[in-house]
Amino acid sequence: MGAISRQSVSTVACSDPQLEAALTYALSNPGKQLRSKLCRETAAMIAGRALHSAERAGEAVEFLHTYSLIHDDLPSMDDDDLRRGQPTLHKQFDEATAILVGDGLQALAFEWIVDTPELGADQQVQLIKLLSHSVGFDGMVGGQAMDIAAEGGSVDVTHLEQVHARKTGALIVAAVMAGAICAGATTAQETALTIFAKRVGLAFQVMDDVLDVTATSEELGKTAGKDIDAEKSTYVGSMGVDAARAYADRLLQEALDALSSFGAAAGELKQIGQAMVHRSS
Amino acid sequence: MGAISRQSVSTVACSDPQLEAALTYALSNPGKQLRSKLCRETAAMIAGRALHSAERAGEAVEFLHTYSLIHDDLPSMDDDDLRRGQPTLHKQFDEATAILVGDGLQALAFEWIVDTPELGADQQVQLIKLLSHSVGFDGMVGGQAMDIAAEGGSVDVTHLEQVHARKTGALIVAAVMAGAICAGATTAQETALTIFAKRVGLAFQVMDDVLDVTATSEELGKTAGKDIDAEKSTYVGSMGVDAARAYADRLLQEALDALSSFGAAAGELKQIGQAMVHRSS
Repeated sequence: MGAISRQSVSTVACSDPQLEAALTYALSNPGKQLRSKLCRETAAMIAGRALHSAERAGEAVEFLHTYSLIHDDLPSMDDDDLRRGQPTLHKQFDEATAILVGDGLQALAFEWIVDTPELGADQQVQLIKLLSHSVGFDGMVGGQAMDIAAEGGSVDVTHLEQVHARKTGALIVAAVMAGAICAGATTAQETALTIFAKRVGLAFQVMDDVLDVTATSEELGKTAGKDIDAEKSTYVGSMGVDAARAYADRLLQEALDALSSFGAAAGELKQIGQAMVHRSS
Repeated sequence: MGAISRQSVSTVACSDPQLEAALTYALSNPGKQLRSKLCRETAAMIAGRALHSAERAGEAVEFLHTYSLIHDDLPSMDDDDLRRGQPTLHKQFDEATAILVGDGLQALAFEWIVDTPELGADQQVQLIKLLSHSVGFDGMVGGQAMDIAAEGGSVDVTHLEQVHARKTGALIVAAVMAGAICAGATTAQETALTIFAKRVGLAFQVMDDVLDVTATSEELGKTAGKDIDAEKSTYVGSMGVDAARAYADRLLQEALDALSSFGAAAGELKQIGQAMVHRSS
C-alpha cells in the first residue's frame, strides 16, 4: 500500500473548501503507517497472500490514528505545534477545522469498513466492534483522559501500563486483530496475535518515552522533552533510561516469541515489530 | 424509551473518573430526543409494533447528536455557554474533557449498533453505512464547516439549504431511515420516508432560525439571538420572520402528505413532525 492520500480517498466528498484543504493536509503526511502495516502483514501471514480487505481495514485504522493525533495536539489537550515535522493541523488551519477533520476521520474509518465489498457482513460487523471499542471510552478516549489526569502527579508503573494499554495499545492491538479478522484467523491464531500485539504495543510506548528524552525534536518530527517538561508520568521517569530500554527489549522478545507457531511466514510481521521498538524517531 | 441515562449505558466502561462524570452529565439532560422518537415511531409504523432494535438505533442517533452539540458548543466553534438550560460541557468541566466525551460518544454510537443482537449483520452494516455517512465529511461535519465559513457573509437560500441539509438534516433523515432499516421497510416505503424526513428536517431548521429571534434564552435553553448576532445567514435574515414561518408550514404539510400511503398507522410519526415545527423551544 502506498501512502493514504486525499486521492486514495477520492470517493469521499467534502462539502467545504477549507475542510477539504485541511483533510488533504492531514492525509498528505501520513507518518510511518505502522498500524496499517501491522494489519496488512498479519493478514498476509495468515492468508499466504496480500488481501485488499486488510489494506482497507489498515487504512481505517490509520484514519482513527490520524484523528486521535489531530485532537491530542489541540491547545486544550497536549498543545503541540509540530507533528511529523510539520505544523499541527490547528496551527496550519484553526482549532475548529482541526476538531472537524478529526471528527470526520473517525466517521470515515467506520464508513470505510462497511464500504469494503471483499468483506462479508459478519466480518464488517466484527471489525466495527473491534475498532469502535478500541477508540471508545474504555479504549483510546479513556486512555487520553487518564493521561491528562495523571499530568503533574506521580503514578506507578502499573497505572502507567493501564493508561498506555488504552491510549496507544488498544489501537495497535486492533490493527493486528483487524488483519486477523480479514484473513479469517483461527481462535488459536488470534490468541497468539493478541499476545504479540499487546507486547509490541507496550514496547513501542516505552520506547516513545525513551526517545522523548534521548532524541531531538528534528529526529522525532514533534516536540522532544515534552512529556518530561509536562511532568507526565513516563517509564523513563519511573525506572530511568537504561532500565526502560531493557524493558522494551524484553517485551519485544516476548512479542516475537508469541509468533513462533507461524514459522517463517511471520518474518515480515516480526520485522515490523522490531522496527517499532528499535527506532530513532 | 425513557431518557438515555448513564445507567442505560451501564455496559459502557469509562476508565477515568472525570470522563465518567462528564459522560454522566452529557447524558443526564437529553433534551427532547426527537431523533430517537423519529427512529422508534418510524419502525413501529412499519412493523405494527415497537421494536427494541429501533430503540437501540435511536439511542445511537442520539449519541451522535449529543456529540455534535458538545463539539459545536466549544469556544473555537460556536462558543456557547448554555445548552438545554444548563452549562455546556466545556463550561461545566473543561475543553479537553468536552472534546473527549464527544469523540467517545461518536465511537459509542457505532459500537451500539453492532452490539444489538436483534439486528442481523446485514442490517447492522446498513445502519453503520447510513450513520457514518450522515455524520461525516459530506454530512454533519461538512455542514458545520460550511456554516462556520458562511459566518459574517451573506449567502442565498439555496446555499443555506445545502448547509442545513448536511448540518442538521442528514441526521434527522438518518434517524427516520434507521427506523426503516430496523423494520425492514420496502423501497417504496423508504422513498416516502425520505421525502418526509427531508421536509420535516428542513422545516425544523427554519423554525430554529425563527425561534432564535422570537424566543427567549430561557425558553430555548440556549443563548437566543446568537445566530443573528454572529451574522450567520439564516432563513429569517433572508426572508423575514413571517415568510420563514409560512415556509416551515408549507414544508411540514409536504412532509405529512408524504406519509399518506401509510394511512392511520402514521399518526404518531405525523404528531412528532408537527411537534418539531410547532414548538416554542
